Amino acid sequence: MNTFEKTGKYDFVTEQYLLDFRGRVTISMIGNYLMHAASNHASKRGFGFSDMTEKHTAWVLSRLAIEINRYPVMSEPVTVYTWVDEVGRLFTNRCFDLVDTTGASIAYARSIWAAIDLQTRRPAPLDVEGLSVYIADRPCPIEKPGKIAAIETETAGVPYQVKYSDLDINGHFNSIKYMEHLLDLFELDLFCKKEVKRFEITYLSEGKYGMPLTLHKKETEADKYAMAICHEGKAICRAMVEWTKESSL
Amino acid sequence: MNTFEKTGKYDFVTEQYLLDFRGRVTISMIGNYLMHAASNHASKRGFGFSDMTEKHTAWVLSRLAIEINRYPVMSEPVTVYTWVDEVGRLFTNRCFDLVDTTGASIAYARSIWAAIDLQTRRPAPLDVEGLSVYIADRPCPIEKPGKIAAIETETAGVPYQVKYSDLDINGHFNSIKYMEHLLDLFELDLFCKKEVKRFEITYLSEGKYGMPLTLHKKETEADKYAMAICHEGKAICRAMVEWTKESSL
Repeated sequence: MNTFEKTGKYDFVTEQYLLDFRGRVTISMIGNYLMHAASNHASKRGFGFSDMTEKHTAWVLSRLAIEINRYPVMSEPVTVYTWVDEVGRLFTNRCFDLVDTTGASIAYARSIWAAIDLQTRRPAPLDVEGLSVYIADRPCPIEKPGKIAAIETETAGVPYQVKYSDLDINGHFNSIKYMEHLLDLFELDLFCKKEVKRFEITYLSEGKYGMPLTLHKKETEADKYAMAICHEGKAICRAMVEWTKESSL
Repeated sequence: MNTFEKTGKYDFVTEQYLLDFRGRVTISMIGNYLMHAASNHASKRGFGFSDMTEKHTAWVLSRLAIEINRYPVMSEPVTVYTWVDEVGRLFTNRCFDLVDTTGASIAYARSIWAAIDLQTRRPAPLDVEGLSVYIADRPCPIEKPGKIAAIETETAGVPYQVKYSDLDINGHFNSIKYMEHLLDLFELDLFCKKEVKRFEITYLSEGKYGMPLTLHKKETEADKYAMAICHEGKAICRAMVEWTKESSL
């Protein structure tokens, strides 16, 4: 199997009614494209959602970093390439490359996944041999998701309670919805002047229905924000959002 | 042009990572399928988003009623048929039929659209002659969206403020997001025991960024709720949600 065969290719066309107020694709929507690609790529290779369920396990997104060069506009075709980059005993890395019709890269993304046992909710060992067959040697020229500063104790936090529409099929706070709620902490004015250049998130524990949460953000350096979602003062996720200096994207 | 040619056909496969905690498609997702079908059907016939923009107008969803026979499950293919049912001077009716792979109807929907002038935000007259060419004579056996009881003065209301992720390309509260926020008013327990059989919504005025709103619901008869979203006590939308007697869907 060569790199080409190991790589999944998924085509999308941006939907007018799902664009933001600037007529651009949202980061959450890009997140959904990535989930679609990851989910289908894994299923076609025998380690998708249903394959995992059969083994009483489920994939859990542990970290995600997206770096955006240019935001797709209305009715723009976008192709997502995805491939497995690394496989460890407990984590596997999956990369993404979003390209436009000219072949130019719109965005790159890196994700880290773990498997959990559906009964115990504890990490389950991965099928390293089985998954490693699909490792592709393709460049993903963005930094891996790293450590994010804990800022929750220094900030007030906006209260939020987990709702029906926030839940995923496992009954937990949907990974993409975390991103949506965090981005909603920024004033609209910022979206008018600048663009998110890099969005990075680390999921620490599962959000459940009705959980009273607090959403935190703090500018740690110019145009760079550390964020967190907390439950009873303890972070269930941390994120880092880096904005462009000006709206050049 | 016969009925077949006038009808648009759009294929979807439900996405595992977008299902609710029960593993079923959400009403908001069905709403998105309808918007996709409506948007593409109109564009292909010369009266889509861009065609309207050229005339300094935009489509505005005025009413929507969805009646669900059965909720699609994971990775289920769904086909949406859509057609124009009626064209008036200020409003046009579009119908939808969602079918499964056996051809059985999953849901029907009826929508009423108006055009607005982008400058004045006032209703713009429709091209009755041009649109009427596409009227198809196909049955849509559900009741048209009707009058919904005003219950806002009788209920307390849950506060909500319009956020970045709520906005559509026109900078207003996204039609589908209204539905999401309204359904979030119901306790999770109800989703465990029952199913929404009919969802109906009337959009009265445009929600804008930062607007402080209140969300209202009241059970007007057994398993039937009248709902509203208000700004300064005045409804910007009203909705009606009818649940099944038991979880039979």
